[in-house]
Amino acid sequence: MGLIRERGFKELVLVDDALRIMLDNISPVDNETVSVDNSVGRVLYSDIVAGDDVPPFDRAAMDGYAVRSIDVSGASPNNPIRLRVVGSATTSQPYIGVVNEFEAVRIDTGAQLPKGADAVVLLEDTEYNNGFIDVYRSVSKYSNVSVKGEDIKKGELLFRKGHFIHPVDAALLRTIGISEIEVYRRVRISLASVGSELVDVSEERREGGIYESNRVLVMGMLSRWPTEFVRSIIVGDDLNGLSEFVESSLLDSDIIVTTGGTSLGRGDLVTDYISRRGSVLLHGVALQPSKPVLFAIVDGKPFIGLPGYPVAAAISTYIFLVPVILKMAGVKGNLYPKVVEGRLRRRVASKLGTLQVVRCKVVKKGDSYLIEPIYASGAGVLSSLARGDGFLLIPENVEGYEEGSLVRVYLYRDVIEDGEGI
Amino acid sequence: MGLIRERGFKELVLVDDALRIMLDNISPVDNETVSVDNSVGRVLYSDIVAGDDVPPFDRAAMDGYAVRSIDVSGASPNNPIRLRVVGSATTSQPYIGVVNEFEAVRIDTGAQLPKGADAVVLLEDTEYNNGFIDVYRSVSKYSNVSVKGEDIKKGELLFRKGHFIHPVDAALLRTIGISEIEVYRRVRISLASVGSELVDVSEERREGGIYESNRVLVMGMLSRWPTEFVRSIIVGDDLNGLSEFVESSLLDSDIIVTTGGTSLGRGDLVTDYISRRGSVLLHGVALQPSKPVLFAIVDGKPFIGLPGYPVAAAISTYIFLVPVILKMAGVKGNLYPKVVEGRLRRRVASKLGTLQVVRCKVVKKGDSYLIEPIYASGAGVLSSLARGDGFLLIPENVEGYEEGSLVRVYLYRDVIEDGEGI
Repeated sequence: MGLIRERGFKELVLVDDALRIMLDNISPVDNETVSVDNSVGRVLYSDIVAGDDVPPFDRAAMDGYAVRSIDVSGASPNNPIRLRVVGSATTSQPYIGVVNEFEAVRIDTGAQLPKGADAVVLLEDTEYNNGFIDVYRSVSKYSNVSVKGEDIKKGELLFRKGHFIHPVDAALLRTIGISEIEVYRRVRISLASVGSELVDVSEERREGGIYESNRVLVMGMLSRWPTEFVRSIIVGDDLNGLSEFVESSLLDSDIIVTTGGTSLGRGDLVTDYISRRGSVLLHGVALQPSKPVLFAIVDGKPFIGLPGYPVAAAISTYIFLVPVILKMAGVKGNLYPKVVEGRLRRRVASKLGTLQVVRCKVVKKGDSYLIEPIYASGAGVLSSLARGDGFLLIPENVEGYEEGSLVRVYLYRDVIEDGEGI
Repeated sequence: MGLIRERGFKELVLVDDALRIMLDNISPVDNETVSVDNSVGRVLYSDIVAGDDVPPFDRAAMDGYAVRSIDVSGASPNNPIRLRVVGSATTSQPYIGVVNEFEAVRIDTGAQLPKGADAVVLLEDTEYNNGFIDVYRSVSKYSNVSVKGEDIKKGELLFRKGHFIHPVDAALLRTIGISEIEVYRRVRISLASVGSELVDVSEERREGGIYESNRVLVMGMLSRWPTEFVRSIIVGDDLNGLSEFVESSLLDSDIIVTTGGTSLGRGDLVTDYISRRGSVLLHGVALQPSKPVLFAIVDGKPFIGLPGYPVAAAISTYIFLVPVILKMAGVKGNLYPKVVEGRLRRRVASKLGTLQVVRCKVVKKGDSYLIEPIYASGAGVLSSLARGDGFLLIPENVEGYEEGSLVRVYLYRDVIEDGEGI
């Protein structure tokens, strides 16, 4: 494990190692049953095997006539073959008889292929006249037919346990007649924003008070994932309030998250309290801005203390809390980040040994992008996030990037104001 | 406008032109007030100007002593300067007195700087002894201080009308003490899945019946955007049902969306009905798979008829419905797509004059990606979407791509099972 000596923290753990410590000490939550309609954004708790074929029967893939392909073998504009039209098949009313020699049934796209027929002749390759059609083109077996099981075969493994459910997956589940599934239940989170200076926006700001903003930030950044916030409160820098929050949360939550109070100052109550109440596995990471990250196990449950400065809270949520929640939510696979590559408009510097996170604005210029690092004097400067679109990560072994370098930015926004989408 | 002659449809409109026709004929919805806590994923209806400075007062950026920088000018390890400690300032209890000549106040990070002081000396640059400190390092004015308005200045324009609100933006709004904002209200959508073969998954599948899957697909694909589904029902291929759906929806929805029934077959009721009931501006686009797209204005409201085959419904939702809903939702700016670049594992072909959408699986191999096109015989094959991760678009003027070509894939998934995230 990589350790960096640093004033204040005895040692700073490298980001990858810190994340590994967290992931090694958490487990997925248990399961519940939900309807497929409410399953988008949830995670499968068991493999899904198709219980039926899709389509469940042979059906017309085009509008035309259901025929026996053998009957129209050799048909051509110069040698039309005449069939008797014996009925009609629509999606609401299948043809219930059998198509016999030299017979045809008018059929709509999607309608079940009648017994006896094995192909569909397109409407435009026929001419209707008084109960008969002349067929001007031969068809081979299953021409213009979606055959039973063509999409999905009964017994086929469709999704594995741990699959994060996209709308196309929910649609597929409905198609095979599944209405309810087992999923991991939402991860129950208790969240506290710690600091005596914090004032809820609904209250009058007192002298020396600061409006609290970390709860909406953390909850919003996790809202895409299967989470449930059991409580999200402000806790002052007093032992009783913190202890009450932690003890209640241990009873009904899967994970406890705080922001603030994790540094080494006099008022950094979270560090003190959690060190005594639980087992601290990590305190201080080589991440700039966002050093004072605390990870502990309290009564068998994970506790993550994030820094209180909003920018650091956002960055540590992105780097640590999201992967932790994804593992607890049962997700197998990897979060695919939204990345944009572009040229740096200005030089950026970083300290060796630390993962530096630079907030950047992405500006579209012609077919390429310019990456504008946002100057910010400190982690308290939330506007640097709000003015930006994504993060540039400067790895531990890099001192910075020169102006004009080609760099990758991890976007946190879906909509870019100056950008150009598809 | 580009037109492509095609059997069946009199003419196919190019995708860009079709989208232009839609966007030119819709307008954003009106507004409502929401709390900032519920504003993530909504769209600002008015500009936001900062009503206060952030931080609202000068405050300590580090733990230390609040001092008058002039007093410690010239301080060094060899020439320490002694100050009298007259009090303490924490985030909960600001120091209410004034710091006079050669006085200091012990101060925590985040606490308000006392009057008289103009800088903070770091704890480690001092030594405390019996009510006094020796200061071993000089500081300049505002050293280790976050000055009032450093983050945001009162009167500054923070966000423009049309801004799509990310959690960092909501946090910023809270920071400046805003608790409620004006946003565009959610776009009210009425959705019908049209077809007599369709059976809700809660019912027994009858002979010739197919489980309906388009509603969960379309609703899921729009769930990230500010929408509200007023109704989402199955309508059989009968005029009464369709007419009833359309007339009710006109009363309480901003847009009407159907899937199915937009082709040219006998049962394609939507085309027939809407042609008579409203004004059709578009029917048939040069998009494969997804030709039978219908756009009309009915009593001044937009009507979009998407194809019934699930794959075509998904693709036309992605290409047309999402941008339409974003404009109606008031979003300014562009949806930034999640893109991955990789080498094609197999040749893909396309017809000139048509935008071809190929479903692809993305496979991580070392540091690069392989793009595996998914073979699918038709638009009915929903499993091609569920097995894939994204879309490869083959433009109208390209006949296909050879194996090994470097191509871009637009991902619809957030989690890639075989991929590797950050």
